[in-house]
Amino acid sequence: MENKSVVLAFSGGLDTSFCVKYLAEEKGYTVHAVLVNTGGFDAEEIKSIEEKAKALGVASYKTLDETADYYSKVVKYLVFGNVLKNGAYPLSVSAERVSQAVAIAKYAKALGVNAIAHGSTGAGNDQVRFDMIFQTFMPNVEIITPIRDLKLSRQEEIDFLKDKGIEWDFSKAEYSINKGLWGTSVGGKETLTSNGQLPEAAWPTQVTKTNAEELTLHFEQGELKGINDQVFEQPYEAIQALEKLAAPFGIGRDIHVGDTIIGIKGRVGFEAAAAILTIKGHQALEKHVLSKWQIYWKDQVSSFYGNWLHEGQYLDPVMRDMEAMLDSTQQYVTGKVFITLLPYRFQINGIESEHDLMSAKFGHYGEMNNTWTGEDVRGFAKIFGNQNAIYHQLNDTL
Amino acid sequence: MENKSVVLAFSGGLDTSFCVKYLAEEKGYTVHAVLVNTGGFDAEEIKSIEEKAKALGVASYKTLDETADYYSKVVKYLVFGNVLKNGAYPLSVSAERVSQAVAIAKYAKALGVNAIAHGSTGAGNDQVRFDMIFQTFMPNVEIITPIRDLKLSRQEEIDFLKDKGIEWDFSKAEYSINKGLWGTSVGGKETLTSNGQLPEAAWPTQVTKTNAEELTLHFEQGELKGINDQVFEQPYEAIQALEKLAAPFGIGRDIHVGDTIIGIKGRVGFEAAAAILTIKGHQALEKHVLSKWQIYWKDQVSSFYGNWLHEGQYLDPVMRDMEAMLDSTQQYVTGKVFITLLPYRFQINGIESEHDLMSAKFGHYGEMNNTWTGEDVRGFAKIFGNQNAIYHQLNDTL
Amino acid sequence: MENKSVVLAFSGGLDTSFCVKYLAEEKGYTVHAVLVNTGGFDAEEIKSIEEKAKALGVASYKTLDETADYYSKVVKYLVFGNVLKNGAYPLSVSAERVSQAVAIAKYAKALGVNAIAHGSTGAGNDQVRFDMIFQTFMPNVEIITPIRDLKLSRQEEIDFLKDKGIEWDFSKAEYSINKGLWGTSVGGKETLTSNGQLPEAAWPTQVTKTNAEELTLHFEQGELKGINDQVFEQPYEAIQALEKLAAPFGIGRDIHVGDTIIGIKGRVGFEAAAAILTIKGHQALEKHVLSKWQIYWKDQVSSFYGNWLHEGQYLDPVMRDMEAMLDSTQQYVTGKVFITLLPYRFQINGIESEHDLMSAKFGHYGEMNNTWTGEDVRGFAKIFGNQNAIYHQLNDTL
Amino acid sequence: MENKSVVLAFSGGLDTSFCVKYLAEEKGYTVHAVLVNTGGFDAEEIKSIEEKAKALGVASYKTLDETADYYSKVVKYLVFGNVLKNGAYPLSVSAERVSQAVAIAKYAKALGVNAIAHGSTGAGNDQVRFDMIFQTFMPNVEIITPIRDLKLSRQEEIDFLKDKGIEWDFSKAEYSINKGLWGTSVGGKETLTSNGQLPEAAWPTQVTKTNAEELTLHFEQGELKGINDQVFEQPYEAIQALEKLAAPFGIGRDIHVGDTIIGIKGRVGFEAAAAILTIKGHQALEKHVLSKWQIYWKDQVSSFYGNWLHEGQYLDPVMRDMEAMLDSTQQYVTGKVFITLLPYRFQINGIESEHDLMSAKFGHYGEMNNTWTGEDVRGFAKIFGNQNAIYHQLNDTL
Repeated sequence: MENKSVVLAFSGGLDTSFCVKYLAEEKGYTVHAVLVNTGGFDAEEIKSIEEKAKALGVASYKTLDETADYYSKVVKYLVFGNVLKNGAYPLSVSAERVSQAVAIAKYAKALGVNAIAHGSTGAGNDQVRFDMIFQTFMPNVEIITPIRDLKLSRQEEIDFLKDKGIEWDFSKAEYSINKGLWGTSVGGKETLTSNGQLPEAAWPTQVTKTNAEELTLHFEQGELKGINDQVFEQPYEAIQALEKLAAPFGIGRDIHVGDTIIGIKGRVGFEAAAAILTIKGHQALEKHVLSKWQIYWKDQVSSFYGNWLHEGQYLDPVMRDMEAMLDSTQQYVTGKVFITLLPYRFQINGIESEHDLMSAKFGHYGEMNNTWTGEDVRGFAKIFGNQNAIYHQLNDTL
Repeated sequence: MENKSVVLAFSGGLDTSFCVKYLAEEKGYTVHAVLVNTGGFDAEEIKSIEEKAKALGVASYKTLDETADYYSKVVKYLVFGNVLKNGAYPLSVSAERVSQAVAIAKYAKALGVNAIAHGSTGAGNDQVRFDMIFQTFMPNVEIITPIRDLKLSRQEEIDFLKDKGIEWDFSKAEYSINKGLWGTSVGGKETLTSNGQLPEAAWPTQVTKTNAEELTLHFEQGELKGINDQVFEQPYEAIQALEKLAAPFGIGRDIHVGDTIIGIKGRVGFEAAAAILTIKGHQALEKHVLSKWQIYWKDQVSSFYGNWLHEGQYLDPVMRDMEAMLDSTQQYVTGKVFITLLPYRFQINGIESEHDLMSAKFGHYGEMNNTWTGEDVRGFAKIFGNQNAIYHQLNDTL
Repeated sequence: MENKSVVLAFSGGLDTSFCVKYLAEEKGYTVHAVLVNTGGFDAEEIKSIEEKAKALGVASYKTLDETADYYSKVVKYLVFGNVLKNGAYPLSVSAERVSQAVAIAKYAKALGVNAIAHGSTGAGNDQVRFDMIFQTFMPNVEIITPIRDLKLSRQEEIDFLKDKGIEWDFSKAEYSINKGLWGTSVGGKETLTSNGQLPEAAWPTQVTKTNAEELTLHFEQGELKGINDQVFEQPYEAIQALEKLAAPFGIGRDIHVGDTIIGIKGRVGFEAAAAILTIKGHQALEKHVLSKWQIYWKDQVSSFYGNWLHEGQYLDPVMRDMEAMLDSTQQYVTGKVFITLLPYRFQINGIESEHDLMSAKFGHYGEMNNTWTGEDVRGFAKIFGNQNAIYHQLNDTL
Repeated sequence: MENKSVVLAFSGGLDTSFCVKYLAEEKGYTVHAVLVNTGGFDAEEIKSIEEKAKALGVASYKTLDETADYYSKVVKYLVFGNVLKNGAYPLSVSAERVSQAVAIAKYAKALGVNAIAHGSTGAGNDQVRFDMIFQTFMPNVEIITPIRDLKLSRQEEIDFLKDKGIEWDFSKAEYSINKGLWGTSVGGKETLTSNGQLPEAAWPTQVTKTNAEELTLHFEQGELKGINDQVFEQPYEAIQALEKLAAPFGIGRDIHVGDTIIGIKGRVGFEAAAAILTIKGHQALEKHVLSKWQIYWKDQVSSFYGNWLHEGQYLDPVMRDMEAMLDSTQQYVTGKVFITLLPYRFQINGIESEHDLMSAKFGHYGEMNNTWTGEDVRGFAKIFGNQNAIYHQLNDTL
């Protein structure tokens, strides 16, 4: 058996545990396990995953902490673009996968391995995201997907591992949970069909706060830099603090219904208090400081950006072009947003910004002012409606 | 004084009461008052307005009930397009004004008057909407706007009316309320600045329902045709019934921040339980029955459609083109939407439709199926990412 | 050998001739050959193809004349949308393939065969167009692509046929020519690299007209219905007559550079006099009769429509929605377009239409008029620029 | 008479000559004349204009050479965006006016005058462009437009000047010509109606080159930096050289039909050899080096950008956001474009670029290659068409 080495995206679950043994013992690979933390794992979880990897006999194990990078390369633009897929979903998982795949590809490239492996099945979005990013980073390296290719049942995987001496508890949880910086997805049972709400107990964060709380979010050029009186060096730290503060209200829970990359529709629950509050607060501020057409165009572009990111096309250069546009829009998105948090909901009360175009200096809506006259508006309406007037008179339609 | 006649958009308030006396007695017009009901006035209110018009001495008074027309020409497309301006506002007032202006213009045309008058000030959106629609329908007829032109204070108007023998109670309400089929706007005090929530007492409908209720909405080709077990002949009747049922939960309350037609920013509160539930329910159903690109393009087009309607450009033929597109998208938007109503909020639990693309017949997301293989997806990812792979290899960017 | 039957898209060339023998004699299929004429074949060519099919021993042969259908389902919308991919290519081949695939699928469905076969290689766009449309029409029917799967060289195919007793002249032409209603593509040699013009001799239609000719195109609701003094029942007949008239000028020749469905870039020459003249004439007329935003939105939507059609996604319901929009835009696109034809070029001289919004009745550009005043425009400019003025003053940017 | 000063946009023509005398002698202003050269005036013309200003008795005269600035702030983005309004017009005049207005506003601000004047009539686009930019730069400064306000005939202006001792030849030219860096407009006679071509003699540059010439354009990150063997420091110099080289072929002549800002339609001839060649060459290069979605989105955004610039909304911050996007897209738009110039036309023969995605390294379109297999494409088509297949089966439409 020749000298073959593989980097394996490892999570400690049944599928990737199977992959370790399968790649190492059946296929003769030197297996380098890697876990990418994009803000969803705490120290304890990471330690446990590392121990599992080692118990399975990997040649090496590495945790890559990509939280800061994930924020600055991806999440930041989801905020700038107020991206909520289908009006609801902050792309919690989709965005994370792309960031993880990039980190793994770079790691694999640095190690100089012959192959790169992931535990995706043949039925989800992740396989496409991983495949595409890996093949782009390393066009000459083989991509191995044992779970997709072998189509084994859970029991077959468990039996295989048992044969190899691994007899851990691989019982399947009722719901599949995926935690990250930008939200936690919850799939299973009710979400597998088109109708049905997740029960209270299924949500990872239980509702423990029942009294209203006032919240002030501070944005600087579109980025969350402060919560109430606390200033954060890094926006991702602010996001994490906001999640801690707001999740116990049950805010940001919803079920996303959407198109998978592979053409079928799917539903998945999510809780994403920080993501939802950040986006809605950011959007409220933008309504005051951006021009009408900035708002319009940000929406048009962000809608595509979110979909394309969801489909794993992060490496399309058009994404960089859109990010340049989004960056430009944020110049004056600086100010405070005032929010009241309540059980299961929140309300945005207003904003304060020195870039607020609703500034009283330029006249109040509905009240006369000094900068224009009724006569100006009469002229405006005359010209603004000129073409329609011509059109309807000419064609005698009215 | 020659034979001059004017149609006046009359509401019974101070401004249009002033206009009656001013046009009739100062300007020598025969004044034909007209009120357009687009679903916001009940019989009693209409009777009171008619009495006021007559007390002011109009030559004729007419109530035009345009509710059915308003629904089929405008509201229907706001539902089809899931139009929420800036992600929030169902265009309650904007949409209505356009419909009212069209009805008034047709009425004026039928009467063959020399002029058409409205009581708009020089500081809001309505003046533009009225001016543009009137000038398009009747290019050779004078548009008279006494309030805008004379720039009188409320007191001056009151004094003028007193001189003419009208001494009604014209005390200004704390909030300016505007009720219609598609929602009620609430402006004043808190909404005049960029920060501040409306107090409970300011909302026209008080919260009196505190226990959760299950709600089923029935859509047929995108239109609301049933609520729970009740079937409605006309979708606008369903909307009115839904408002009655859901408004006491305090659902659909929010503050809209947006761009006025005249370039400044403005805020206005609104309660629109039926509009919000109808749109969100409709959108939930669409997520299941439309293709990915139908959803994408509906959003792109509707965003413009909503803005352009808001700006009073209803008569631009591009609006008809967009409506044709929206009509086409609704072919299979038929089914039930299951919702739970709760105080101040609601949750959409799911849908049921024979056009549901999430149909189990074609495989579950996340589970293997019979219609494609993991190998298919591997090929898909290869080709789907082909251009990016070429791009990055060629330019050596990674 | 069980009873297996296949419909084969047959063109009489080497690849599909191979397929007949391979499917019939190696795979035991009853082979039903079908040729779809979308306007590119004349009676003689069709007869020759039929004879070849029969000589190869097909069980049945059928010519489907889809020209009228191809026009009304596809070409019409390319005219309505002024679709020129990347600003140049009228989608001559792409559009045709979709129409052919649909016709073949319907025919196969009517015959009730077990399989459907096409001669596409694994390197082009057509394989994707055919595969997708066949799998959508007949999800349970096998799609057979011998050329793609067996990866045979031309010589191997020729040898195989020789073995089977077929010794025709299969020498490869210098250029691959594909003729249809909407243009003729010319690929080979110069188009295989990024630089190089096709030589005169390579163009299927040689330039034989050298004196200027005046041409008048008559459009009715967006469709070409007349040329000079001749009226046509069917627009596709007008297109064919226009091609005959204009092609000898060498008009409509160009090289298209674009993205294939499979991610690589490709170049192909084309001559499409009728397509280019029809689109440019139609667009000239539209500039006079459509509103500003109709023109804008038609372009946005048509750009996607053309790309998506090119990628074989004709069956996406979003295409029907866009067609509904395009249909709506054509209501007043009726009138004459005056063109001068010259060797290798043409110039559009103007239009005449009773729906011409440039109608002198409403004032000339650059000259004062009766429907608005300079004062109106002053007011218009004040309000039209209001938000920018506020923005720049507030942010002190100028 | 108090101390009042005005900056007047001066061109030396009848209208602005009238303005000098009118403002100085009738209105008591100290008149500061200013001419902005955006590349259309040569030294002789400038000298003549200056002499006229002085003869009219202005307090000061200034020529501002804004060619470099005009290029880098405006023209560059018209190239990046391949902006041709309505598919034809490079915005020769529209773009220039914006740049001129900005320069004048800055100059007026520096001088600290009380007023700013321009000679626009009430019937064109320029009045809106000037008004809006002036009011944004100097919200508290009066904008004076004597020609628009006084509605004088040419004869009345001539008589007024005669009274003031100015008896120049103000006979009106048959065509109104406007020359700038980005093209020359030609309006009058034939362009005033919807039908009619400009005669040869009307075009400012006569056709004197009749033999084909080969041309190579060199682009660096989207900017024209070389022509044939000549390298230019500044792209605007390359544009000027290209115009000199190509205009005598009669290339880039056309008639633009479009919407004015004030709602009516207008036609205007233009010759713009350099603009058309630069844009078409640039676009040809982009087709080879940009990803599919970069091309798509550039077009969507540029279409709006061009329209909005045309309407004088250059100061809308959304324009800066779009420029940021366009800048980003140009990273690899570097290479050569090979063109043949011929009388009245040109043909693009190909490109050469190290960023060419059509690079043979990654396989030729239409020929098999090493980076993917037919099996990959089969899988791709399966998944790419999956949703449509589900849609049509579910709804039983085919």
